[in-house]
Amino acid sequence: MSDREYQYHVDGDLVPAADATVSVRDRGFMYGDAAFETLRAYGGTVFRWPAHEARLRRTCETLGFAEAVPGDLRDRVQETLRANDLEDAYVRLSVSRGVQPGKLTPDPDVDPTVVVIVKELPRGGVQGTTPWDDHAVVQTVKTRRTPSEAVPADAKTHNYLNGIRARLELRRAATDEFAADEALIRTTDGAIAEGATSNVFFVDGGVLKTPSDDCDILPGVTRDAVVELAQNEDFQVEAGRYEVGDLRDADEAFLTNTTWEIRPIASVDGIEVGTGPMTKLLSRLFDERVEQRHYVDE
Amino acid sequence: MSDREYQYHVDGDLVPAADATVSVRDRGFMYGDAAFETLRAYGGTVFRWPAHEARLRRTCETLGFAEAVPGDLRDRVQETLRANDLEDAYVRLSVSRGVQPGKLTPDPDVDPTVVVIVKELPRGGVQGTTPWDDHAVVQTVKTRRTPSEAVPADAKTHNYLNGIRARLELRRAATDEFAADEALIRTTDGAIAEGATSNVFFVDGGVLKTPSDDCDILPGVTRDAVVELAQNEDFQVEAGRYEVGDLRDADEAFLTNTTWEIRPIASVDGIEVGTGPMTKLLSRLFDERVEQRHYVDE
Repeated sequence: MSDREYQYHVDGDLVPAADATVSVRDRGFMYGDAAFETLRAYGGTVFRWPAHEARLRRTCETLGFAEAVPGDLRDRVQETLRANDLEDAYVRLSVSRGVQPGKLTPDPDVDPTVVVIVKELPRGGVQGTTPWDDHAVVQTVKTRRTPSEAVPADAKTHNYLNGIRARLELRRAATDEFAADEALIRTTDGAIAEGATSNVFFVDGGVLKTPSDDCDILPGVTRDAVVELAQNEDFQVEAGRYEVGDLRDADEAFLTNTTWEIRPIASVDGIEVGTGPMTKLLSRLFDERVEQRHYVDE
Repeated sequence: MSDREYQYHVDGDLVPAADATVSVRDRGFMYGDAAFETLRAYGGTVFRWPAHEARLRRTCETLGFAEAVPGDLRDRVQETLRANDLEDAYVRLSVSRGVQPGKLTPDPDVDPTVVVIVKELPRGGVQGTTPWDDHAVVQTVKTRRTPSEAVPADAKTHNYLNGIRARLELRRAATDEFAADEALIRTTDGAIAEGATSNVFFVDGGVLKTPSDDCDILPGVTRDAVVELAQNEDFQVEAGRYEVGDLRDADEAFLTNTTWEIRPIASVDGIEVGTGPMTKLLSRLFDERVEQRHYVDE
């Protein structure tokens, strides 16, 4: 699969992946001055496109160039999927502030750079397979979540070193016997925020709990979908402020993101947590939703 | 000058600026996963190269790919200056983690992308002109400095949205009568840290003061040079924790960075501060150092 030559979409044109480039003066490269979304296509259609597009535009609003974002983003994504003959795929859509005169202060006149990258991904849903092999092994890291007063946490930008630092901690701590595959990142004041690329859920006394938007999290599209599914089942859902101990002591716990969907947590800091009836039910309901194609436009 | 077609250095080759690109899958673009330095060439030689190179390598160490950084960085910079027939120039040197398999967790096997960008800049030094027209108008912003526990402040990386957000605040607050040109950024606990692209100095009762390394600052190469000059003159220099009020009440104040060198602060939040005897002496001494070519290798 890695030998396959994909076509990417760069600034309005389809180009072979090997020729897909941006200027070294693009602010996306120079400063990480760009917004992005990770999308998932099932059967050729992007899951929850409106939610992803809304978040992308909110991020560009935070960065001060929302009005420059083109209106045909979805067309560009679909065109890229078709050009690669892809039904089930990972998609990365980026919009940078583009090339500007050589100053840090952004120029109000923005010609954004729009990039669509795609890659084949196993089909999810009822008949599908998961993109992960095992339940997640989670480790609490020293790196704390960048607080919103520095860079708003709900903006999904190309400034991703905070998460990369967290993952590097896992890499450094790995041994032949033990390697964690997701970092548990806390806020500067010690509450659970999220994983490097995932949101955290756990079940405690029959209540589904997840860190609230006040905990410097990036509110995931899959997180929202899971909360809706749980509420539809009349499960009690609580968004709050939790400590690592709450997660370690949970009855069940799982991570969510666009590619993983729902991924049970095997252990936190070496303490077993694992799956259970609520995680299994939510996973089944999520798979069913993936099959319901009308759902993608909700 | 902006119409001039420069040659940039990308991954070992000189290329026309219009063709200087990186892959859309370069981690420098995808995540801002890269280190950089802003350099200043005087008379064809980079000022304080060893200090800049040391800081770049420290940043790459923080990012976990120091061992992959090539040894001929200085040659690449000098080659670029020569190819553009530039004596007095701005230089931006970037080293990214390059293209890797599509995961956030960095692969230990790194093939870095090295980019050198140049641009003509007026000559500094005794006979030179400053690259700024007026003294700096400084405004305190709401955006706080990303704390080191999230991303180490002493790493100069392509994650620059913290400073960009600060500058956007200035842009939004600007009127026809008043526009600040540097943001004063505080730490999350309210101490003065630095400007978006500069370090802060002020004079109080004959003592030269600057926020200490504990205040989540990026310790500038020009900042170090100024501290050395002041100590050589037996001025008392204090690195500490200061409030915005300390700066507003100062006798003199100035900013330092590689391109501005020493730039007096006209006002802070509309309150006049201005220049004075110590700032003028340090500026003259700095200009003399620029003329002393042997100094560049200290």
